[in-house]
Amino acid sequence: MTFVPTDFLTSEDESPVAIERADAVGDVLLVCEHASRRLPSRLGTLGLSQEALSSHIAWDPGALAVARLMAEGLDACLIYQRFSRLAFDCNRPPGAPGAIRDVSEVFRVPGNENLSETEKAARAQALYYPFQDRIGAEIKDRHARGQATVLVTVHSFTPVYYGTPRAVEIGILHDEDSRLADRMLAAADGNKQYRVERNEPYGPADGVTHTLVLHALPAGLLNVMIEVRNDLIDTEAGQRIVAGFLTELLAKSLRDIQR
Amino acid sequence: MTFVPTDFLTSEDESPVAIERADAVGDVLLVCEHASRRLPSRLGTLGLSQEALSSHIAWDPGALAVARLMAEGLDACLIYQRFSRLAFDCNRPPGAPGAIRDVSEVFRVPGNENLSETEKAARAQALYYPFQDRIGAEIKDRHARGQATVLVTVHSFTPVYYGTPRAVEIGILHDEDSRLADRMLAAADGNKQYRVERNEPYGPADGVTHTLVLHALPAGLLNVMIEVRNDLIDTEAGQRIVAGFLTELLAKSLRDIQR
Repeated sequence: MTFVPTDFLTSEDESPVAIERADAVGDVLLVCEHASRRLPSRLGTLGLSQEALSSHIAWDPGALAVARLMAEGLDACLIYQRFSRLAFDCNRPPGAPGAIRDVSEVFRVPGNENLSETEKAARAQALYYPFQDRIGAEIKDRHARGQATVLVTVHSFTPVYYGTPRAVEIGILHDEDSRLADRMLAAADGNKQYRVERNEPYGPADGVTHTLVLHALPAGLLNVMIEVRNDLIDTEAGQRIVAGFLTELLAKSLRDIQR
Repeated sequence: MTFVPTDFLTSEDESPVAIERADAVGDVLLVCEHASRRLPSRLGTLGLSQEALSSHIAWDPGALAVARLMAEGLDACLIYQRFSRLAFDCNRPPGAPGAIRDVSEVFRVPGNENLSETEKAARAQALYYPFQDRIGAEIKDRHARGQATVLVTVHSFTPVYYGTPRAVEIGILHDEDSRLADRMLAAADGNKQYRVERNEPYGPADGVTHTLVLHALPAGLLNVMIEVRNDLIDTEAGQRIVAGFLTELLAKSLRDIQR
């Protein structure tokens, strides 16, 4: 009798967890759960059109590019997930209904319909657990070597949702610990560049703060989730401008807190 | 600015994950999620009476003792959780409502009422993730060294639930993969010793197969969950008799499958 570990990811797939600038010395640890629209080869297209597979239901367009630029500016480590949230949304706990969606906004996702418990567990094992484990391990390693961690997750959102345009341009989101978000919102107040709002277009009640809640809150780490409207970061120029704004905002807010 | 990892468990508490007979060479890996009624020191009594804290809502009485005897008989490794399911039910995923109960059967659990997301996350980080990670790591290590894994979880249930006596004495439970359970039920058929039933007094719809679903199903490992009515195993003699029965049943069923 021989058994093999789950082969949900095959030799055609890369490792689900990517780490960049692992030796960075800054306090900020950037995380991008929805960095990629790539699907594990085993899932094919999930029955979706190329349009759907390129859209915000598969990933947060521009978020990884912005996070990378912020990582440079802040001398920060960046951890991101290499596979699409359509396979498994790593910003949701395994038991949550939103972890694997069979309907996402206006799109049906045929390949996610009527999944067996085995199929769901295989995705959680292959994608969610290694990703969140790695973030936890990184935070522990940093702590052990005397490096602080300020956990910052970077996301983007669609300018039009269910047909309704969204006015907010940058969301500063938090769960029960709003220390860093409060400072960032205060520092952004009165800026002419962007419309910045608290817990918009989503908030903790939508379950979007899972990564923060899991890693930052129990440990008392400063934390924030940043949402950028994706039409602002659909070009390299836009990404540089937004990343510059956020890097400044974050750095200033952290200096304020440390003072 | 300095941060510390979560201090939910303190120096007064032992490690949440216990492993016994780690070098055992048998194919079976025994898991006991509800082995202990101990609470992390930080939780005090959760506002419960000593009666409630000793009862089946806190743990599966007798299950660890039976699992240990089975581990001897099968030359099996045993992994168990050192803290009570009242702190965190490690047989539930973190997003599931049953992971931290504020009502368990007829008992209110005051210390679990109105928990913040931070408090819930601290418990998951301290108790659930290390436990399930360790099971996964153990299975991977076994595979790497060429040792098969048959995953068997051992539980007990109360003879009277919500005032109603239960006739079933031993439950053989399974989720989508019933290969081993089918064999065990066939082998137990006609035995005079115990009333053995399939997916009783709980079944997969009650969410009790989480550990099996997480580790065994995606990897195609043979697996089964065993439930023993706890009045049969409230003495050492009873534990020996039941463990002997189950060890025989499991060993015979595995031989049948391997043939």
